[in-house]
Amino acid sequence: MISLRPVLNVLGFLYVGLATAMLVPAIVDVASRNADWRAFVFSALFTGLVGMLLSIAVGGSLKEGLNIRQTFLLTTLAWATLPALGALPFMWLGIGYADAVFEAVSGVTTTGSTVLSGLDGLPPGLLVWRSLLQWIGGIGIIVMAIVLLPFLRIGGMQLFQTEASDRSEKVVSRSIELIRLLGLAYVLLTALCIIAYLATGFELFDAFNHALTTISTGGFSTHDMSFGYYTNPVSGWVAIFFMVVGALPFVLIVQALRGQPLLLWRDPQVRALVGFLAVVSLMMTVYLGATMQFSFGEALLRATFNVVSIVTGTGYALGDYTEWGGPVVGIVLLLSFVGGCTGSTTGGIKMFRFLVFFGTVRAHFRRMVRPNRVMSEEYGRTRLTSELSFSVLAFLVVYMGAVGAVTLGLSIFGLDLTTALSAAATSVGNVGPGLGPVIGPSGNFAPLPDNAKWLLCAAMLFGRLELFTVLVLFDPDFWSR
Amino acid sequence: MISLRPVLNVLGFLYVGLATAMLVPAIVDVASRNADWRAFVFSALFTGLVGMLLSIAVGGSLKEGLNIRQTFLLTTLAWATLPALGALPFMWLGIGYADAVFEAVSGVTTTGSTVLSGLDGLPPGLLVWRSLLQWIGGIGIIVMAIVLLPFLRIGGMQLFQTEASDRSEKVVSRSIELIRLLGLAYVLLTALCIIAYLATGFELFDAFNHALTTISTGGFSTHDMSFGYYTNPVSGWVAIFFMVVGALPFVLIVQALRGQPLLLWRDPQVRALVGFLAVVSLMMTVYLGATMQFSFGEALLRATFNVVSIVTGTGYALGDYTEWGGPVVGIVLLLSFVGGCTGSTTGGIKMFRFLVFFGTVRAHFRRMVRPNRVMSEEYGRTRLTSELSFSVLAFLVVYMGAVGAVTLGLSIFGLDLTTALSAAATSVGNVGPGLGPVIGPSGNFAPLPDNAKWLLCAAMLFGRLELFTVLVLFDPDFWSR
Repeated sequence: MISLRPVLNVLGFLYVGLATAMLVPAIVDVASRNADWRAFVFSALFTGLVGMLLSIAVGGSLKEGLNIRQTFLLTTLAWATLPALGALPFMWLGIGYADAVFEAVSGVTTTGSTVLSGLDGLPPGLLVWRSLLQWIGGIGIIVMAIVLLPFLRIGGMQLFQTEASDRSEKVVSRSIELIRLLGLAYVLLTALCIIAYLATGFELFDAFNHALTTISTGGFSTHDMSFGYYTNPVSGWVAIFFMVVGALPFVLIVQALRGQPLLLWRDPQVRALVGFLAVVSLMMTVYLGATMQFSFGEALLRATFNVVSIVTGTGYALGDYTEWGGPVVGIVLLLSFVGGCTGSTTGGIKMFRFLVFFGTVRAHFRRMVRPNRVMSEEYGRTRLTSELSFSVLAFLVVYMGAVGAVTLGLSIFGLDLTTALSAAATSVGNVGPGLGPVIGPSGNFAPLPDNAKWLLCAAMLFGRLELFTVLVLFDPDFWSR
Repeated sequence: MISLRPVLNVLGFLYVGLATAMLVPAIVDVASRNADWRAFVFSALFTGLVGMLLSIAVGGSLKEGLNIRQTFLLTTLAWATLPALGALPFMWLGIGYADAVFEAVSGVTTTGSTVLSGLDGLPPGLLVWRSLLQWIGGIGIIVMAIVLLPFLRIGGMQLFQTEASDRSEKVVSRSIELIRLLGLAYVLLTALCIIAYLATGFELFDAFNHALTTISTGGFSTHDMSFGYYTNPVSGWVAIFFMVVGALPFVLIVQALRGQPLLLWRDPQVRALVGFLAVVSLMMTVYLGATMQFSFGEALLRATFNVVSIVTGTGYALGDYTEWGGPVVGIVLLLSFVGGCTGSTTGGIKMFRFLVFFGTVRAHFRRMVRPNRVMSEEYGRTRLTSELSFSVLAFLVVYMGAVGAVTLGLSIFGLDLTTALSAAATSVGNVGPGLGPVIGPSGNFAPLPDNAKWLLCAAMLFGRLELFTVLVLFDPDFWSR
């Protein structure tokens, strides 16, 4: 059996942290003389109490460290239970159980699909809590992707092993310094984003909320029209810039802030992402220019904004791109699979997996044609081992299999194929909006049946945890001696 | 440079073979006093002449043998050019260029999507030629999958290397004996199928045509209603039996006919296929019994028939299953990816790849949890090498990528998402019917725009050639010294 003691101990500390975060919307509501502050204070008390009791009950110290199997368990348990607690304020404010959990899971996983409408009239604390869930989820995934996943060798992430994630059996006790730097960079970028939004004419409340959900590539907005609410095109370009920043590897951002910005540009993932975004945005601009009544500047902004929003998994919308004709719908669906760089706040397949995939398939071709020669492929300066190629390919297959399975489940729950498929892709990829009249960029997930919402919650978590972190728990071998 | 001489020489012989086959519909038309026989005779003369001139022009002998790169080229060239010549009679009979080629490609690849309607009133020679294209394509893919693909190590097929496909540099000159036995078994099974259909009340013409397209899991029918035309339920069960036979590994069928039937049942692929078909058919039967007005016998027949038809990639329809409600649509879409056994006439991903995939992913889980232990997985009695796992996973990724790319292309050509996605899946998987009002089981591919038809032709060939046979030609390395 696996000893759960250190796992529950860490969970307890995380709950206390979440409880502390709940005080932020409470303060906002108090400041704006809104009675909703009680919902947040009560939720904070409950969550904090659960956390403290858990830590005290199991005892032990954080310095104990976790072995591999405990790390797997902790990761899944943390991501599954934190949104359940994070949903408490929503329930207190009268939102139904399935809707509250859906909104919290969509928040923490930085997906950004929403079941709420009439956002413009919602109380400020509630809006802040949504934004804050995404912001917390954003730094959560960064730390997980940089510190834990390479250690767990999930989907080829062993490629990104650092000193902080080496293979010794103790994880949590290390890497405190790295986590501190990542946190600092995250806070700094968020502050810069707030200032930039303010400079383009946002009010402080909007600037704060949108900065939180931009840098985390989350995509919750305070307006039903999302970015369509703002008329200043510069606001759109600020969002584009910070969405791309949120999709970059944060280890390299830390190094850039410490005076080595060139490392960013030399990274294969960063080059691939920026190049890909540029090419697709330009093609989309040309298409929009040719088919719609947009000026060049407007076409460029709308094309780039929506392409960046989907590829980075943010999910803001600037206008309803599903009205841009059939081709755009197909392209948007494919873009929702792509993702940004690993070690960022984005979901999806992610750039390095495409790079590893194309590299190894090319080597595979050569071996097919000339079986007697030895070839090897590299990623950056690392030689790709067969284990690594295998991890990446298995990830790709399981990813697409998961989208297929969720699509099937949703179609069994009565959704039409376009809605089911795009909901599956957008949830596993942690993107946000889907396609079709119901869940499209100007729609909302509220009309879906409850069982579909629960399935989508599972899909968002599954995607956020890079599939294998969860899947491995279903292998009976995991639990044996 | 690759010497094209032996490639063109073999091609020439194949064209002469195709020309000979064109005489069959000519004879049928003469016998039924139909003037269309000219179309077939002229096409046969042209095709035979091209073939003979080609062989004479390049000279050489079939015994020369081909090296790996020549085998890749020959395979793709043969499958791309034979349907072009096979389309000649259709054009002669007044069918448009795109439609004629689509019908011929759909025939030779045993896909079974059709652009023709009013089948019941079409001249007999034309119907026979459609069936014959599928029958020829069926034995073609069996020989290719057994003799060539393991040698080329396509998508994990190295698992099925026999003496006939060993790694020496000479391919074609070997394996004549094996090809002869495969051909005999194929003819024998076709004859049995004709007799069985006759016994259930088919007329000779229908029995002949349907036997040709059943054993090849092709799916062209002589009636617009496909199997809905026949009221005797036993006909449906005969079709189910022979569709399953067409999906079995023909090497094992040959061994079964030579007195070792147990080998068939011991094969992991066969067990997986039969088990999968049984489970899915039963589940579908229960669903139909619960939701529709069918008797048990009717529900069992309709469920089993359509499940077997789609999984084996045949594409006959018995009733319009798209009217069976939302869940069935999602399930049918997923089923069109599955496929039968390798070394059979079916397309799709195929059973052994699922088995290898699940086996290696399970081993991958164990390595993630316990990095220091050495594990290995087996398929039947063969240990899976990392190269083999890699081939299979790369195949799965490229397969799904191809479906995605074709979907995108079709949506750019103006098709709605359901039509585009199901057309992509059905063509890459060589299944036949798609979903939605246009190309569904009671629909037809004729209304699609020509560019969509050409793209689907490419997709059918790409799927039939197990993707990598074609892809490797696009690697510049293939063509370099």
